[in-house]
Amino acid sequence: MSKVVVGMSVSVDGIAGGTDPSNFMVVHEAVLGWVFNLRSWRAEQGLEGGEDNQDSKAWAAEFERFGAQVLGRTMFDYGYPYWGDTPPFHAPVFVVTHRAGERIEKQGGTSYTFVTDGIERAIEQARAAAGGKDVLVAGGIGTARRALAAGVVDELVLNVAPVVLGYGTPLLAELGDEPLALREPEAVAGEVGVHLRYQLAR
Amino acid sequence: MSKVVVGMSVSVDGIAGGTDPSNFMVVHEAVLGWVFNLRSWRAEQGLEGGEDNQDSKAWAAEFERFGAQVLGRTMFDYGYPYWGDTPPFHAPVFVVTHRAGERIEKQGGTSYTFVTDGIERAIEQARAAAGGKDVLVAGGIGTARRALAAGVVDELVLNVAPVVLGYGTPLLAELGDEPLALREPEAVAGEVGVHLRYQLAR
Repeated sequence: MSKVVVGMSVSVDGIAGGTDPSNFMVVHEAVLGWVFNLRSWRAEQGLEGGEDNQDSKAWAAEFERFGAQVLGRTMFDYGYPYWGDTPPFHAPVFVVTHRAGERIEKQGGTSYTFVTDGIERAIEQARAAAGGKDVLVAGGIGTARRALAAGVVDELVLNVAPVVLGYGTPLLAELGDEPLALREPEAVAGEVGVHLRYQLAR
Repeated sequence: MSKVVVGMSVSVDGIAGGTDPSNFMVVHEAVLGWVFNLRSWRAEQGLEGGEDNQDSKAWAAEFERFGAQVLGRTMFDYGYPYWGDTPPFHAPVFVVTHRAGERIEKQGGTSYTFVTDGIERAIEQARAAAGGKDVLVAGGIGTARRALAAGVVDELVLNVAPVVLGYGTPLLAELGDEPLALREPEAVAGEVGVHLRYQLAR
């Protein structure tokens, strides 16, 4: 059975995003900037070049396995104009939102479907569309947290940027009253970042 | 030249300790409990048995390199009665404190020296005593943070417990106004935990 994976980039102190518009882009760059120069990330965007290193290989391994993705509405609204006519997902994307909307078809295998009845239903739809491949909950922070809190996630993948930020919004907070037990740790250090993977008890 | 290392155990969400007496022991167990069953940790305490696994090997590698350790007073006061006549340090220990005191000699190579003129002076004394080996700043949280904030740390070692706690005191906070850049990541996944190492720009 295909897995549901929360995969996000964080700093070493666990920060995944800014706290307000004044630091949104600075934190975004600190947490994700190192990824933008990886060959595998650039290939997903239709860009050439980039470093073909261990970080790039680790990133690629965490992309090719996914047959569908789930995004929150805030991330979708932010990213939509940048993702363009051939978005980097190359798979059906399910957007968790309160606002209904017609499905949008893009080139290169990406479609956007708007799901108004919650994260769990979006994950169900993504799983059905994934053709046996895994489902990635790619963000934003609120959507990832809600998926983890709902107990519907099989695996947590953290791409750890080599910085202690000291401010920003942590990914792994507000997940419920009980600690979240993880198992089967995997860790790969690239030239720049660290790639962690854990299985969750469901 | 010997290195100054901050080495601590944390949860996946970066928690290193409790927030008050009501959760001190629960967090301690969550963050460090997995270590107490490692053969190498047990050997340091003079105990037999324990798991001889990858986690144990990774832990041992982060112990044998140290010729002296630096501790904060709170950690010292808490641990002193438990550490007994043959403490687990097997090296000179320098305790950062406001209260002066006579040096205490223990068996098995451990001594306790009380340093009243700050973390940087304690690290200097530890380095002089380490005989060319590295110096471990082993905690508690406040002492580790002060060493990192003072810019006198060469390396950060994190033993990551397989749990997202959701509460407690983070290690990597209050380190100053600027983000802390890390480089040369190393990562080893054991059967239970993950062992991370970063170099700091000094």
